[in-house]
Amino acid sequence: MRVGVLTGGGDCPGLNAVIRAVVRKGVQRYDYEFLGYKDGWRGPLQGRATRLDIPAVRGILPRGGTVLGSSRTNPFNEADGVRRIKDNLAKDRVDALIAIGGEDTLGVAARLCAEYGIRCVGVPKTIDNDLSATDYTFGFDTAVNIATEAIDRLHTTAESHMRVLVVEVMGRHAGWIALHSGMAGGANVILIPEHRFDLDEVCGWVTSRFRASYAPIVVVAEGAMPKDGDLVLKNAAAEDAFGHVRLSGVGEWLAGEIERRTGKEARTIVLGHVQRGGTPSAFDRWLATRFGLHAISAVRDGDFGTMVALRGTDIVRVPLGEATARLKTVPADRYEEAKVLFG
Amino acid sequence: MRVGVLTGGGDCPGLNAVIRAVVRKGVQRYDYEFLGYKDGWRGPLQGRATRLDIPAVRGILPRGGTVLGSSRTNPFNEADGVRRIKDNLAKDRVDALIAIGGEDTLGVAARLCAEYGIRCVGVPKTIDNDLSATDYTFGFDTAVNIATEAIDRLHTTAESHMRVLVVEVMGRHAGWIALHSGMAGGANVILIPEHRFDLDEVCGWVTSRFRASYAPIVVVAEGAMPKDGDLVLKNAAAEDAFGHVRLSGVGEWLAGEIERRTGKEARTIVLGHVQRGGTPSAFDRWLATRFGLHAISAVRDGDFGTMVALRGTDIVRVPLGEATARLKTVPADRYEEAKVLFG
Amino acid sequence: MRVGVLTGGGDCPGLNAVIRAVVRKGVQRYDYEFLGYKDGWRGPLQGRATRLDIPAVRGILPRGGTVLGSSRTNPFNEADGVRRIKDNLAKDRVDALIAIGGEDTLGVAARLCAEYGIRCVGVPKTIDNDLSATDYTFGFDTAVNIATEAIDRLHTTAESHMRVLVVEVMGRHAGWIALHSGMAGGANVILIPEHRFDLDEVCGWVTSRFRASYAPIVVVAEGAMPKDGDLVLKNAAAEDAFGHVRLSGVGEWLAGEIERRTGKEARTIVLGHVQRGGTPSAFDRWLATRFGLHAISAVRDGDFGTMVALRGTDIVRVPLGEATARLKTVPADRYEEAKVLFG
Amino acid sequence: MRVGVLTGGGDCPGLNAVIRAVVRKGVQRYDYEFLGYKDGWRGPLQGRATRLDIPAVRGILPRGGTVLGSSRTNPFNEADGVRRIKDNLAKDRVDALIAIGGEDTLGVAARLCAEYGIRCVGVPKTIDNDLSATDYTFGFDTAVNIATEAIDRLHTTAESHMRVLVVEVMGRHAGWIALHSGMAGGANVILIPEHRFDLDEVCGWVTSRFRASYAPIVVVAEGAMPKDGDLVLKNAAAEDAFGHVRLSGVGEWLAGEIERRTGKEARTIVLGHVQRGGTPSAFDRWLATRFGLHAISAVRDGDFGTMVALRGTDIVRVPLGEATARLKTVPADRYEEAKVLFG
Repeated sequence: MRVGVLTGGGDCPGLNAVIRAVVRKGVQRYDYEFLGYKDGWRGPLQGRATRLDIPAVRGILPRGGTVLGSSRTNPFNEADGVRRIKDNLAKDRVDALIAIGGEDTLGVAARLCAEYGIRCVGVPKTIDNDLSATDYTFGFDTAVNIATEAIDRLHTTAESHMRVLVVEVMGRHAGWIALHSGMAGGANVILIPEHRFDLDEVCGWVTSRFRASYAPIVVVAEGAMPKDGDLVLKNAAAEDAFGHVRLSGVGEWLAGEIERRTGKEARTIVLGHVQRGGTPSAFDRWLATRFGLHAISAVRDGDFGTMVALRGTDIVRVPLGEATARLKTVPADRYEEAKVLFG
Repeated sequence: MRVGVLTGGGDCPGLNAVIRAVVRKGVQRYDYEFLGYKDGWRGPLQGRATRLDIPAVRGILPRGGTVLGSSRTNPFNEADGVRRIKDNLAKDRVDALIAIGGEDTLGVAARLCAEYGIRCVGVPKTIDNDLSATDYTFGFDTAVNIATEAIDRLHTTAESHMRVLVVEVMGRHAGWIALHSGMAGGANVILIPEHRFDLDEVCGWVTSRFRASYAPIVVVAEGAMPKDGDLVLKNAAAEDAFGHVRLSGVGEWLAGEIERRTGKEARTIVLGHVQRGGTPSAFDRWLATRFGLHAISAVRDGDFGTMVALRGTDIVRVPLGEATARLKTVPADRYEEAKVLFG
Repeated sequence: MRVGVLTGGGDCPGLNAVIRAVVRKGVQRYDYEFLGYKDGWRGPLQGRATRLDIPAVRGILPRGGTVLGSSRTNPFNEADGVRRIKDNLAKDRVDALIAIGGEDTLGVAARLCAEYGIRCVGVPKTIDNDLSATDYTFGFDTAVNIATEAIDRLHTTAESHMRVLVVEVMGRHAGWIALHSGMAGGANVILIPEHRFDLDEVCGWVTSRFRASYAPIVVVAEGAMPKDGDLVLKNAAAEDAFGHVRLSGVGEWLAGEIERRTGKEARTIVLGHVQRGGTPSAFDRWLATRFGLHAISAVRDGDFGTMVALRGTDIVRVPLGEATARLKTVPADRYEEAKVLFG
Repeated sequence: MRVGVLTGGGDCPGLNAVIRAVVRKGVQRYDYEFLGYKDGWRGPLQGRATRLDIPAVRGILPRGGTVLGSSRTNPFNEADGVRRIKDNLAKDRVDALIAIGGEDTLGVAARLCAEYGIRCVGVPKTIDNDLSATDYTFGFDTAVNIATEAIDRLHTTAESHMRVLVVEVMGRHAGWIALHSGMAGGANVILIPEHRFDLDEVCGWVTSRFRASYAPIVVVAEGAMPKDGDLVLKNAAAEDAFGHVRLSGVGEWLAGEIERRTGKEARTIVLGHVQRGGTPSAFDRWLATRFGLHAISAVRDGDFGTMVALRGTDIVRVPLGEATARLKTVPADRYEEAKVLFG
C-alpha cells in the first residue's frame, strides 16, 4: 500500500504532528509506503512529491508550519485538474490520499472521492476552530495561548498608562479565538463576528471600567462588525501613495472611535500571523497526533470518504461531506455566558 | 443570598479563576454576597473567613495557587466537626457553599449535603484529570504543557550526549499527565500506573532507539510500577543519616535499571511541584472560568448536591456523589493507541 | 529619612522590581520611610502620593508595568511647576527623590537637582537601550526576548507559504531591539534607524533567500528609513473617513514595496505594545533589582545628582547630566558585524 | 582554508548558534571550507567528521544541544592521542580548529596549540558562567531564565500550602545560577558554594518569613555546603537495594533539616537537566552568534592560541591559557548585595 499525504490552506501548528503520526504508524504497524505531495493540491496536480519515511518525519512533531508546504490551489479551477491528479496518482502508484486541511482542501477531497473514486481520508485543520463536525481542531489551542499571553502582557501597559488597548485577533467568520483568549486573558470586552456590536454599549463598558479605576482591554475578532458596519468597510479601504490598497482593520478603527467618543487614549495591537506560527501547544500536538494515528487506521480499514474528528475525548470518523457542510460559529448562549464578565 | 467559597486539597492552576468567576457573576448578575473560607474545610470548621467582593478577586485570574489557601482537613475526622461547621455557617449567615476540590473535598461536600442538609455545589479539581464525571479538570492542561516543555528541552541533551533521560511526572493512580505529555513531547516510552511495565520490553525500546542513532526519552508516571513492583518498593525506602526516610522514586530506580541492563548512561529528572504551580494555561483559565460561572448558576437555581462538569464543549451538572465515585484511569485502548509510537 | 519614588515615561518591564528593591533595602537596612508619587512628575506636582512599605511592594517583582503609574508630565512646562514640587515635597517631609525614567524624566531630575537643590538619584529606564551611560537598561532584554519568540514563530509560516514576512519592532531612534532580536531570531535582513536602507539591496537579499529555496524574515525598526525616506513619510500619513489620522508604518510600506519589486507575497507584523508589557525576563529583574539596591545606597551616601548604571557586571554611579546627554545608537561596526548574516 | 569545528563537555544552549555563525561567515565572507568533528576531542582523535556547509547549519540557531555531539574525551589521556589528532587533521587537510567548550576542552586546545603547534581558536562555554576571562558565557542566561520560571511557579504552591520549597539549581563550584535566579525569582534565601551556610541562620530567615505570613522559597546551588558539610557528604551517599549508589543532594538534605528544625513542612525540587536543554534565550543566541563571528575572524587573522570573550558589550580576544586559569566565583560583596533581600 502506498499512501499520499498533503497539507492545504493556511499553515497551522500541528500539521507536522499529523504527518509524523500518519507515517510512524503506517510504516511501523502496517508496513505502508508514503509519498508527501508538495503545496496542497498543487502537488498531485503537478506531480511534485517527496518520499516520506521515518527519518523524514524525525524531529518535526514540535515544529510549526508544514514540511510539505501548502497552497490554496483548487484542482477544480484548473484546466483538466482532476484528470491530471488521477494520472499523477497512478504514475506514483498511490493507492490512497490523506488530505489535511480546512473547508476548501477537504471539500476538494470530498468531491474527488465521491465523484471520481479517488480514495481519500480527511484530517480537519482550521486555526479558527469553525468546523462543525469536530469539538476542536488543532492549532486553535496554540493560537488561543499566544493571544492570551499577549493580553496578559498588555494589562500592565493599560494600567500603567490608563489607556484602552484594543487587541485584534484572528477570526473572520467565527469568534472562537476572541472568545477563548478574551475569557482566559480577562478582557473587559469581547467582540465577535457572530454578534454585531453596538459602539455605545462598547464605550459604556470601557467607561465603567475606568470608573472602577482600571484600564480596559478590548478583544476584537478581525471579522467583528459594528451595527453600521457597511459604512466602515467602504471607508476604511484606501490606496496609499504607492498604489498599495490599505484596509483599515476593525481594531484600529475601533480604537479611533473609542478615543473619539470616550476621550480616553486608545491603542491597537494586531496580533496577526504570530498567532498561527511556531511550536504547537501540548494539546494541539496531542490532538494532531491522535488525528494522524486514526486517519491512517481509516485508510487501513478502507473507510474512505471520511474525516477524523474529536468528540469529547474520542476520535471518531464522520463523512467528509458533512464535515465541511456547516460553519461552527459561537452560539448566542456561549456569548451571553461570557458577557457577564464584560465591563 | 450569601455564599461561602472554599478550596481544598493540593493546589492547582485555575483555582483563582473559579473564585473570580463565581464572585464576578454572583455580584454583578445576582447581587449575592460572598465569604471566602480559608484553607479548605478548616475554614468553616474554625470560622476563619474573609469577605470576597469584586476588588478582592481583581487580578487573580492568571495567578496560580489559591488566594483562599488550602488544606486536607476533613471535618468528619474532627471532633464535633459537622456541628461546628453548621454553627459557623449560621453565624456567618451563609446560605450555600461552593466547594472547589478533588475527591476528598467533594466527598465531604456530598455527605454534608446529603446527610446534613448543608447546601453545597461542587467544582471538580484534580491536576491528575482522574475524575470520571468530567472530560477534563482544570490544572491538567497546564501540567501537561509544563511537562511537555521540559521534555522538549531534554531531547537536545539526550541527543548531544547519547544518553537515556527518564522524566518522572505526576500521576499516582492515573497516567493522564504521562500519556498526554509523553505523546506531545515525542517520548519514546511512556509508563503509566494502569499498566505494569516489563523492564525487558522497556530496555528493548531503549536499545532500538539507539540502534537508529537517536537517544531515548522515557516518561514515567510517579505511580507506574514494574511487574515485580513490590520488591522495588520494599527496597527503595531507606533512612538516611539524619533520620529522614528517603523513598527512591520510580524514575531514579528505572534509570538505574536501564543503565545496568543496556549499558547506556541514563539520568533522571523529577519534575515535581513545578508541574502544579504558576499561571494556568489559556485552556485551564477558560475551563475554570466556565466552571465558576456555572457553579454560581447552580446555586441560583437551588440545584444543590451537584457538581459542574465538562462534557465535550458543554458544562453540565452531575450529582456530587456520582462525581467522586470512580477514578478515571487511562483505558487500555488509549494506551495501545500511543504505544505504536514507542521505540 | 523619608524618600520619594516615582516612575516616568513609557512603561517598561522591571519598574516594579526597582521599586521593590529600593523599599526592601531602604526599610530593612536603613530604616527609611517611603512615599510613592503617582504618575511620574505629575505626582509631586499635584501632591498625589501613597505610602510604600514592605507589604506594599510584596509580589510586584515579576509584574510588568508600574504600580505607581506613569506620565510624560514635565514640571518645567507647568505653571509654577518647580515651586509646587518643592512645596509638596516639603509638605510630605520628603528628603530625597528616586526618579526612575528615561531621558525626559531624568532630565527633569538633573535640573531639579542642579538648579533647585532637590536631592535626586536617578535610575535609567528605556526599553530601547539607547542611553549612553549604561551598557544595558532593564526592559530591553524582555523586549528582545518577545520579539525573538515572535520571529521564531514566523519562520514556519514564511517557509510553509514561501512568503516574505516583515516584522516591525520598536526603536524610533536606535536599532538595538531590531539588531538583537534579528540576530537572535535568524532574520535575513535587519533594518535600523542608524543606517538608511537601500530598497534594491533589501530586495536583493530577499531574492537570494528565495533562490536558496527558503523564505525570508525582514526585521525593521519602526524608525528605519529608506534612502528616499522623506517621500515616504509625506505620503504615508492619511486621514481616514472618520477623521483619524493614519500613519502607515515603515513595515507595511516595506512589505508593499518588496511585493511590488520582487513579485513575492509579503506580509507585515507590527509587534507594538506587546514588546513592552508583561513579566520581565530574569535578566531584567536582576538588573532592575540591582539598580534599586544601588540607588538607595546612593541616597544613603548623600550622592545626589547621580544615576546608577551598568558597566560590564558592575553597577556604578554617573552624573545625572551626563547620563542623558547623548543617545546611544548602534555603531556602524556592530551593524556590519551582523550584516554578514543577511540574505 | 579548511577549518575544523568541535564542541566538548556538557551540552549548553547556544552551541549550535556558534557553529552556524562560524560557518555562515566563514563560507560567505572568506570562502572557507568546514569540517565538523563529532563528539568533542573524540572526533579528531578517531577521525570522525562531517562536512559543514550552509545547508548543514540551516535552522540550528534556535535549537539546544549540539549537532556535532559532545564528549569529555581528553586526548592527553589517550594512548598516542596527540599524534593521532595531528595525523587526522593532516589527512582531513584541516588548517585550523575552533574548539567550543569549557575549562577541559579549552585546556586541551591551549596545550595542543602551545606545545604541538596545532592552530586553535577557542570559544568559551559553561552554563555555570564561571570562566574568569569573560563577563558571560552563553547558556547561562537560558539556565537562569528556566530556573526563574520554575521559582515563579513554585511561589503560588508555597503560599497556598504554607510550605517551605527548596529549589536545587546547578552550580557545583560557583553560585551564579543560584544568585541570579534567586534574585530574579524573589527567593527568600540563596545558598551558594562560595559561602558555607549556617543552618540556624537559614532557619531564622525561614521562620521570619512565616511570621510575616508568607511562605519561603530557598534556592540552593548543588555545590552549596553547610558549615559542617563534611559530615553531610559522608552520610548522604548510600547504596540502594539494587546496588546503585545514591547521593542525597543538598536540596533534599536541607529540606529535611528545615522541616526538623522549624516544624514547617518543606519540599525539594531538583531542576537538573531541564536547565541546560532546549532553545537558547535571545541573549544567549546573540552572544553565541557574536562569539562565532569573532572566532572565525580570529582564524582569518591567524590569531591562534586565543579565545573570544565578552567584556561589557565588546567581544575581545584573550590568550587561551589565561582563559582557563582561574574559576570565576561569586565575590563576597555580590553575595552581600543580595543578602539584604533574604528573609
